[in-house]
Amino acid sequence: MGIFIKRKNMHKFSVITDAPAGTKGLVKELRVRWFLEEIGEPYEEMRFKHSELKLESYLKLQPFGQVPAYQNEDLEMYETGAILLFLADETGKLLPKEGKERANALTWLFALLNSLEPFITARIWLNFSFEKNDVINQIMSQNLMLIQDKLSRLEKTMIHADFVTGEFSIVDIVFVTILRNPAVMSILGDHPKLKNYLVKMEDRPAFLKALNDHSKLYKI
Amino acid sequence: MGIFIKRKNMHKFSVITDAPAGTKGLVKELRVRWFLEEIGEPYEEMRFKHSELKLESYLKLQPFGQVPAYQNEDLEMYETGAILLFLADETGKLLPKEGKERANALTWLFALLNSLEPFITARIWLNFSFEKNDVINQIMSQNLMLIQDKLSRLEKTMIHADFVTGEFSIVDIVFVTILRNPAVMSILGDHPKLKNYLVKMEDRPAFLKALNDHSKLYKI
Repeated sequence: MGIFIKRKNMHKFSVITDAPAGTKGLVKELRVRWFLEEIGEPYEEMRFKHSELKLESYLKLQPFGQVPAYQNEDLEMYETGAILLFLADETGKLLPKEGKERANALTWLFALLNSLEPFITARIWLNFSFEKNDVINQIMSQNLMLIQDKLSRLEKTMIHADFVTGEFSIVDIVFVTILRNPAVMSILGDHPKLKNYLVKMEDRPAFLKALNDHSKLYKI
Repeated sequence: MGIFIKRKNMHKFSVITDAPAGTKGLVKELRVRWFLEEIGEPYEEMRFKHSELKLESYLKLQPFGQVPAYQNEDLEMYETGAILLFLADETGKLLPKEGKERANALTWLFALLNSLEPFITARIWLNFSFEKNDVINQIMSQNLMLIQDKLSRLEKTMIHADFVTGEFSIVDIVFVTILRNPAVMSILGDHPKLKNYLVKMEDRPAFLKALNDHSKLYKI
């Protein structure tokens, strides 16, 4: 009779080695990295050049040609919301398991990814894709109002001072990595709870470790 | 010793009674309604006029002033992705429970809500909010390319002919209710698998029942 040792399932996720300098600290792979640092599990980067993301071999991992794609010995995934949710449930960490705490965490998770982030993504797209003129400025101004309105609503809804839900969870990882974009764009607005929350979260050792390792990709 | 009968937990979700005619069949409450019809559980509408969605009493249920908000005797939620996911897990229906089937379903769920729907929502917003001119047309044209690109990718990725994953799930509810928008806008493009899928899904008895009951709100 042999002795079987179950090998620890190795987490792997894709990263870009030649991303523009302005994306440092804002690429979504940071979410998966931060999560794995928080729960203390080892991982490996799968490194790609930006141009390689459009190859069919990569599109099999991530059909939109984006990072991160995730894989371990058992399965492949993409979309950071899905990856964090799945891994949180698999490991039993950083997400309430049931009842109203889980309902609340899931509500926030989807609200942030579906009702806040798309407006910020749209703003980044408008900024990069079009030269400024009256019409673009008008759209940007309406977009800014929408973002400010959402942030104000979230500021009001955020009843816990420290974390989105009762304790640190994947929802915080998503919220912080979203908020870092309006922070960089200086459009975080007059939202003291959100600003204070962001500063505290960015001081977590696991975040700092993840950010530091992510940033090394910009020196390759 | 008394006999305790656990009352069936009643699902309630908010709907609008005076939505513009053009939104018929496209309002997101249809997702929750369809899900509950599929699993055969009773529900009640919480009816609101559009103007009431901006009252603080409603914003406590749904901080962005949108429908649907969901509640039962135990908890309150919003965001259709969160509601469907939570209820699927609670009832043990219409979502794989574990392993690579669950990983795949979650990947699709988030991909549809985060990487496809926002571009369609942006298009609707641009259509309704701005008069057409050269700049708007240029943005609309780039937006269309992005939507077509995503749809093409999903057409390729959709390996099952009938359902997104191996069997009918909440992912189909989300995908169909998203696809109905580009279908109405006649921008579904040359994607025969998606078109065929949409037609089949819209023929499900639970969908037809949900659509019919939803449509009654437009006759109040």
